[in-house]
Amino acid sequence: MIKELAEIDIKPGQEQAFEAAAAIARDLFLGSKGCIAFRLHRSIEQPSRYRMFVEWETIEDHMIEFRNSDAFLEWRRLCGPHFQSPPRVEHLLIIVEGHNEPAADSIAAE
Amino acid sequence: MIKELAEIDIKPGQEQAFEAAAAIARDLFLGSKGCIAFRLHRSIEQPSRYRMFVEWETIEDHMIEFRNSDAFLEWRRLCGPHFQSPPRVEHLLIIVEGHNEPAADSIAAE
Repeated sequence: MIKELAEIDIKPGQEQAFEAAAAIARDLFLGSKGCIAFRLHRSIEQPSRYRMFVEWETIEDHMIEFRNSDAFLEWRRLCGPHFQSPPRVEHLLIIVEGHNEPAADSIAAE
Repeated sequence: MIKELAEIDIKPGQEQAFEAAAAIARDLFLGSKGCIAFRLHRSIEQPSRYRMFVEWETIEDHMIEFRNSDAFLEWRRLCGPHFQSPPRVEHLLIIVEGHNEPAADSIAAE
């Protein structure tokens, strides 16, 4: 599994329109081959800056299958008009991870 | 819930040492008040660039509680010597999310 990270700056004033379009576009990603998860985040410190994380089974699922699909064209048609500049895209590998289980912690604390 | 995003550039050649230190430091985060999850990712395109995502219940859990804790000092003692430059830190809000259930898909496809 790899994660696509796209850093996207939105034209000031178009944040709400972009978020509404991205909520529709989410299903274009989730319906694509190899797509596991989609998350769009907004920066608290820089409110016109968004980061989209898409989990793919392989980098080819993103760069070959998705990029050459009608879903990609539709995503760009919906959201592209709100971009201030082209998204900056990278792919990430998970190196270390861990999480707490709030429910289990609550039980252990009793 | 908010996510801390720290973009960290590591001194070339020290990537493995940094990853080993971060695997130890993970438990410093997970043991801190309000910490939900910790993930360290490495960029495929820029292999000395890491992104650390830490989920916190509130921004204060990160910026006040953790930053003033012994755990923060220990994290920086372990990992700081490998930093090429100070980490760039932001906080993210989740705007849109969704995921596929591979198991459910497999069942549905049968």
